[in-house]
Amino acid sequence: MLKHIQSAKNPKIKDWKKLLTKKERDKTGTFLVEGFHLVEEALAGNQVLEIIINESKDMPPGWDYGDIPVTMVTEEIIGLLADTETPQGILAVCEQARSSGDVEGKGYLLIDAVQDPGNLGTMIRTADAAGMDAVIVGDGSVDVYNPKVLRSAQGSHFHLPVIRGDLFEWVNRLKENNVTVFGTALENAREYTEAEHAESFALLVGNEGSGVNKDLLALTTANLYIPILGKSESLNVAVAAGILLYHLRK
Amino acid sequence: MLKHIQSAKNPKIKDWKKLLTKKERDKTGTFLVEGFHLVEEALAGNQVLEIIINESKDMPPGWDYGDIPVTMVTEEIIGLLADTETPQGILAVCEQARSSGDVEGKGYLLIDAVQDPGNLGTMIRTADAAGMDAVIVGDGSVDVYNPKVLRSAQGSHFHLPVIRGDLFEWVNRLKENNVTVFGTALENAREYTEAEHAESFALLVGNEGSGVNKDLLALTTANLYIPILGKSESLNVAVAAGILLYHLRK
Repeated sequence: MLKHIQSAKNPKIKDWKKLLTKKERDKTGTFLVEGFHLVEEALAGNQVLEIIINESKDMPPGWDYGDIPVTMVTEEIIGLLADTETPQGILAVCEQARSSGDVEGKGYLLIDAVQDPGNLGTMIRTADAAGMDAVIVGDGSVDVYNPKVLRSAQGSHFHLPVIRGDLFEWVNRLKENNVTVFGTALENAREYTEAEHAESFALLVGNEGSGVNKDLLALTTANLYIPILGKSESLNVAVAAGILLYHLRK
Repeated sequence: MLKHIQSAKNPKIKDWKKLLTKKERDKTGTFLVEGFHLVEEALAGNQVLEIIINESKDMPPGWDYGDIPVTMVTEEIIGLLADTETPQGILAVCEQARSSGDVEGKGYLLIDAVQDPGNLGTMIRTADAAGMDAVIVGDGSVDVYNPKVLRSAQGSHFHLPVIRGDLFEWVNRLKENNVTVFGTALENAREYTEAEHAESFALLVGNEGSGVNKDLLALTTANLYIPILGKSESLNVAVAAGILLYHLRK
């Protein structure tokens, strides 16, 4: 199923280009990834619906893409669809992950209103590295399928479920399933090294400026802080998430 | 000492604008910081030589800037000097930190060839938070006074010495002073949780893609790795530095 499109006005190109907006990604339940590494990870994760490649490039010989449609396009069209300044010449349309809402894992990262795409992507990558079972991203965060989030996460979207959800519902559901929910806060919190060991836990981190929503913090099992030993006011949220996830998972 | 400059062609403006290049920063031993928070931190750190402010803004009433010269300029000139898209309207020319090369502290972060300004700035901020005594940045890293590094570090440049230096010399000097030097590596390394406690330590982290220079790793006291429990290939270098610094400082 090899097609060739050379006109940027082709309706298919217009449809793909719309996936650069969150609105269209939400409507179609799909998203674009860019570059050989991410497309390969998406294939391994069985989430690829279509592949788009620069007509001057070859599909890597080792890739098993079965009957997934491949469309060759011009370099100009790649430039229209890509978010990077020097695109590698390959993209894939992928299916968004869906959640059953079941709680079967032992480790969760919950993210409340994180704005910076690099921070969100780095946290998804860190949650993957720390062996978490899912990342739940609440309202008010940057879109999990934003191209910069995808790049910073380096393929982790295809390694564990990254789910958009209502954090109030999730905190309650996790607690009902005997998962210890640790919030992060600067006040009314205990030092993270004093957190009791939990067989199953969720870590809840929040906005770069204002932290986790206070109403959510009121629902957690306990709230933790990382002591600041020098003169900085705080830690970057992705660094803080890394310190806490690696401490708690032990 | 209040001056007013309205022409972008004024030689003073041209000199300041040159500070957007590393070459000029190195030549003059100065750098620019931008925004009320960073200028305030620079004042507190006694590193401000001159203040530049949008003529339509007022100096914050609480600031103690003594006889530091203040120059009012047009919004257009602020735009020429600022690296951000929506500048706050204030900048300061600051003096670069100098190092005596003495080793008197108990905690050091050594950075080898880190390319991304966000990563370098975040690590300077993290080293500050973790109570380190200095950050030593080797050749091949992005400039420590790059505007994006300064922004990500959120003022930590003014809280602890951030020094450019030869990492080979530093590793040897630290070891001669009984500081345990921990490298980071994926091979021939022990799990970080098994590192022996060291009263004084230095942590050495490296390039986003290739890690720490192998010749440097051969000089360390021991090399550590952070286990990957999921499917990601690695951790972001700033997240890894955070996990290790907070673990080792205990």
